[in-house]
Amino acid sequence: MNNTFIQACRGQKTDYTPVWLMRQAGRYLPEYRKIRGKVDFLTLCKTPELAAEVTMQPVDILKVDAAILFSDILIPVEAMGMKLEFSEAKGPIIYSPVRDSVAVDRLRRLDPKADVPFVVDAIKLLLKQLDVPLIGFSGAPFTLATYMIEGGSSKNFVNSKSMMYQNPGLFHKLMEKLTLTVTDYLRAQIDAGVHAVQIFDSWAGVLSPYDFRTYALPYVKQIIAGLATKIPVIYFPLNTSAMLPLAKESGADVIGLDWRIEIAQAVETLGHGVAVQGNLDPTILFGSKEIIRERVTNILQGAVNAQGHIFNLGHGILPETPVDNAVAMVAAVHEMSLKNR
Amino acid sequence: MNNTFIQACRGQKTDYTPVWLMRQAGRYLPEYRKIRGKVDFLTLCKTPELAAEVTMQPVDILKVDAAILFSDILIPVEAMGMKLEFSEAKGPIIYSPVRDSVAVDRLRRLDPKADVPFVVDAIKLLLKQLDVPLIGFSGAPFTLATYMIEGGSSKNFVNSKSMMYQNPGLFHKLMEKLTLTVTDYLRAQIDAGVHAVQIFDSWAGVLSPYDFRTYALPYVKQIIAGLATKIPVIYFPLNTSAMLPLAKESGADVIGLDWRIEIAQAVETLGHGVAVQGNLDPTILFGSKEIIRERVTNILQGAVNAQGHIFNLGHGILPETPVDNAVAMVAAVHEMSLKNR
Repeated sequence: MNNTFIQACRGQKTDYTPVWLMRQAGRYLPEYRKIRGKVDFLTLCKTPELAAEVTMQPVDILKVDAAILFSDILIPVEAMGMKLEFSEAKGPIIYSPVRDSVAVDRLRRLDPKADVPFVVDAIKLLLKQLDVPLIGFSGAPFTLATYMIEGGSSKNFVNSKSMMYQNPGLFHKLMEKLTLTVTDYLRAQIDAGVHAVQIFDSWAGVLSPYDFRTYALPYVKQIIAGLATKIPVIYFPLNTSAMLPLAKESGADVIGLDWRIEIAQAVETLGHGVAVQGNLDPTILFGSKEIIRERVTNILQGAVNAQGHIFNLGHGILPETPVDNAVAMVAAVHEMSLKNR
Repeated sequence: MNNTFIQACRGQKTDYTPVWLMRQAGRYLPEYRKIRGKVDFLTLCKTPELAAEVTMQPVDILKVDAAILFSDILIPVEAMGMKLEFSEAKGPIIYSPVRDSVAVDRLRRLDPKADVPFVVDAIKLLLKQLDVPLIGFSGAPFTLATYMIEGGSSKNFVNSKSMMYQNPGLFHKLMEKLTLTVTDYLRAQIDAGVHAVQIFDSWAGVLSPYDFRTYALPYVKQIIAGLATKIPVIYFPLNTSAMLPLAKESGADVIGLDWRIEIAQAVETLGHGVAVQGNLDPTILFGSKEIIRERVTNILQGAVNAQGHIFNLGHGILPETPVDNAVAMVAAVHEMSLKNR
């Protein structure tokens, strides 16, 4: 087993900088599109053999140092009793959004065995095949709450914030329910054998620091404390450059960074006791191989004082990305970081 | 003339904290919707009497300390020879996006007299009526470039960044043309008599610090230096919490802040020599009057060490905002800041 990724998560010295890409199993890969052409997105998530197959693809093609379970952050939302659909044009659609106490009360707590057996089964299949660590994941409660309340993606999150500001008690009640579900969901993945977990807080960046501290962070803390796991926990609150000290309070072992901050500045702000993951702008992969190498080098140099650095993009790889540029990026990370030791 | 806004821009002591709202002339006002019901958006921008009328509305209704000319950041883009349309559903649409050197070469330099006489005329009408300062504005070159290249709004800015990374020379050429146009456009507004100007860099936050420094900031600097004006210049690069020291290098008198950063932290990072504008989350206006007062107070206290603070939202006021909450916010800023002197 290539253990470089786990060592970096723990802040240990590694021979080179490990790298994986958010959404590395995805539409930019022809091999993925071939399978996706046969089944819809949710069926792919819920068929262990297929989910395992697309999880493996980027490990073989890109030579990344970790695999991440192919799934969707909204799987636990569906398990709580909401009807979920993925539209090619609009993205996720959640029917009957949660806007009042009746809707919050109606939400079930996820039962891993009954609701997400396919996740556990996919993990077990993967553990037999992989020679790199497997990352499990979940959406963070705040991010999941916004999908539930808005009924899908949103521009200004007016419904979510209206609930926060008009009925904070109800919002907190929803967050408490989500926190139990996310904890159980991640624990099921950990029990099945994943080597690390990542908590995606994709919409944390629509909050002010005040609201992040009040409405989002306490629940992430509670999840990480509740898991009390020995495997590394990565927390990725997108677009929170000015809230990194708060993100560190989550108790995560690794903080994910988007590309809106110099990694050296993030490392300095975060200080000791936490590793960093990131943070190449995904659109750099549309540039020349020279630009990719140059920017990879900048990030590796900027992270030189990090207590553990996992190279990644600052956001998911884009569907139109040329595969050979992604391959070149991974190779550049390995080559340039080895050179610098 | 109420000069509080200008004094705060200059970092001078004021009796109370001045306040205005981005997009204060807009759809949340029934008085605006009434006029907008009769003419389309671009006609409204281009009819001086109507543009002046909607510019005045929030001054009377909200009691703000500054007016901002009703117009759109894309007006100079149209003047450079591109066909522009506003769709209710999709927002701005720009036909034949700029993707190659032929398209860049074809762009004309804006001629204020021929292309935007309506802007100058609206300003002249307004100066006769207003008893608060009038703010002129333009989009920043990078933000305008993204609209030109993408053909409208965008999610990932793949076309803009592809040009930056594949053909940086062409991207810089486009930016140079935009810089001349924006400079001329702002100078025309200054010559017509506006009391301050704001440069909106609404998409600066999609750039890494490296790219912001390389592709966007130099042109803003050039514009501000080129104007060499005595009136205050406000620069508002949205979503750049980790790039404030760079934003300060623009040479602007005031830096606009979104709500993703504590204002006290922004003030500390920016240091002396620059005023700040912001930074209430626009969705707070969907909360109770008590929450509005509480958050207004937090921001006023956070900005207590600022060398000039203009209160504003961290982004444009939203169309669904209850008008009386906007009125209450402006009143709270005046009342609470007067109390604290």
